Amino acid sequence: MATIKDIADKLGIAVSTVSKGLNGASDISDQMRQLVLDTAVEMGYASKKMKTTGNRKVCILIENMDYENIDQFGYEIIVGFKLSAARRHWDVSVVPSNLTMQTAEKFDTYMLKNGYSGAFLLGFTLHDDWVKQLNKTSVPTVLLDNYIERNNHVGYVGTDSYEGIDLAVDHLKSLGHTRIAFLNGSKNSMVSEQRYQAFVGSMAKHDLNPLEELIEYGYYVPDCAKYHVPKFLENGATAIICASDLIASGVIAEVMKQGLKIPEDISVVGFDDLPIAAQLTPSLTTIRQDRIDLGKSAFLLLDGLIHNVTISKLLLRAKFIKRQSTGMCKTQ
Amino acid sequence: MATIKDIADKLGIAVSTVSKGLNGASDISDQMRQLVLDTAVEMGYASKKMKTTGNRKVCILIENMDYENIDQFGYEIIVGFKLSAARRHWDVSVVPSNLTMQTAEKFDTYMLKNGYSGAFLLGFTLHDDWVKQLNKTSVPTVLLDNYIERNNHVGYVGTDSYEGIDLAVDHLKSLGHTRIAFLNGSKNSMVSEQRYQAFVGSMAKHDLNPLEELIEYGYYVPDCAKYHVPKFLENGATAIICASDLIASGVIAEVMKQGLKIPEDISVVGFDDLPIAAQLTPSLTTIRQDRIDLGKSAFLLLDGLIHNVTISKLLLRAKFIKRQSTGMCKTQ
Repeated sequence: MATIKDIADKLGIAVSTVSKGLNGASDISDQMRQLVLDTAVEMGYASKKMKTTGNRKVCILIENMDYENIDQFGYEIIVGFKLSAARRHWDVSVVPSNLTMQTAEKFDTYMLKNGYSGAFLLGFTLHDDWVKQLNKTSVPTVLLDNYIERNNHVGYVGTDSYEGIDLAVDHLKSLGHTRIAFLNGSKNSMVSEQRYQAFVGSMAKHDLNPLEELIEYGYYVPDCAKYHVPKFLENGATAIICASDLIASGVIAEVMKQGLKIPEDISVVGFDDLPIAAQLTPSLTTIRQDRIDLGKSAFLLLDGLIHNVTISKLLLRAKFIKRQSTGMCKTQ
Repeated sequence: MATIKDIADKLGIAVSTVSKGLNGASDISDQMRQLVLDTAVEMGYASKKMKTTGNRKVCILIENMDYENIDQFGYEIIVGFKLSAARRHWDVSVVPSNLTMQTAEKFDTYMLKNGYSGAFLLGFTLHDDWVKQLNKTSVPTVLLDNYIERNNHVGYVGTDSYEGIDLAVDHLKSLGHTRIAFLNGSKNSMVSEQRYQAFVGSMAKHDLNPLEELIEYGYYVPDCAKYHVPKFLENGATAIICASDLIASGVIAEVMKQGLKIPEDISVVGFDDLPIAAQLTPSLTTIRQDRIDLGKSAFLLLDGLIHNVTISKLLLRAKFIKRQSTGMCKTQ
């Protein structure tokens, strides 16, 4: 593990300058500080520094996810995380991230500079620069719904899609549905891939045929429904499982636009159980992700990583919530 | 949720008798106490009682697993669990279990009677009566290496077999091995099934052929090697991955008995990294399960379940430990 002297030697500067850079003293230039921090990170000094600091500060970095009010997916996750963190006397900063931040400096440098002992990343994708850097980071980091291979400092928290989708297929089969469609979220997302596998696996387990013409990738927005719902209906779907409640809200609108009734003609199932699910007409049968628990678990995982317990994955149970958007299959 | 009065009404006895039964007073008969407890469990009173009790008592129930000294698989798991539990001020009882206990009373009754708020089950199999009852239990329970579907009160802790086996295949391929054999543990064990899938998946990912004649199920004991190693050698294996260090110790003995050298003729990889791994001749390259961390994580999970955070799975990273039992493939 690199020492302050190693960093000073490498840069050909005084130990005191390195120390000033690491501690954010005001009498060195910003450029010099950046150089010191980048070198500290590169030489593996960062993690040691962060572990021995007395600070108990972690951050939630958010991108591409709404979180400002309770109707939005990120809100309760942050609440849950803060609740668990507060119980263990950790400070939590919530930091909206963007492309500029990620190109301005490396993830490890950002964390070191701000004195954070760990991070929870919400809404990031595998294409984000900071996520790409996680293969090598030594900063304890937790990702929602994304998995980094072979790095003991990074963990993944999420909801068990398999069991959730399996409960939905179970329910629909018990209502007589066999031609069940699946409108997934975005391609190239780990969680979409998991839900696809879950759907195909659960259909097979229930002796039902997962039909190619009834499975589509969309996006995690309501609008994607209008491209896929007409095709599902043409192909004889009697029920549609959606990879999010937002997609399901679009599906409900599109099915009604086609002059069909829910659940009399078509059953619809969502995923997430956002507050909107209960407010839709008809109210949405859905697979609940407990977002408070996701946040609490993310902190548990991060706390583990900070204390060198190398947790790789932590999955929560999905809960099945029956409401009004699913009913007996007519064409049975 | 049933009340004490509900139980009294159902049994046609006084509330005070129910109360005595639940609290273990000495002035009612053992038979009456058993009846009260069984009824309390059946009516769903148990979990409420256990949650509101001031006791902070959990237990580790062990079956079919050695744990009495540091050379044995269970020892450090228990240490890790106790360390985490002590930090949160929970008492831990370690209870060797057996068939008689399991037939004498139901799991939930046992837990209620002894005032435990949760249990960690080590070494149990899906055939055990108490494990079969876990589909319905409302007692927070954590299983090592076994998964119970659709019960929010039960969680599973283990090591990520996939990544562990993948690291081993990676290593062997880099040494020029292509005819890699896999000697698995017992059939009908969830963890054996996972390791089988991991082996086949990782071989495919590395453009290697998982050959049927080089994959066998054995048992988690050294002795199983003598049945399978001769066949592997006949079929041209140059490396053998084993599902445990104990199996690997048997494989090393058998390979040597056949007049071959390790690693010059045959490479051998274990799984677990028990203390024995470093002591074997040659010392064993293996996939490490960090048992202290498994124990710590099991407590974290149990603590979560007790506080209604419905964690389903918690997996730890496997670590790859290179020692002397693997080397370059001669027949490359």
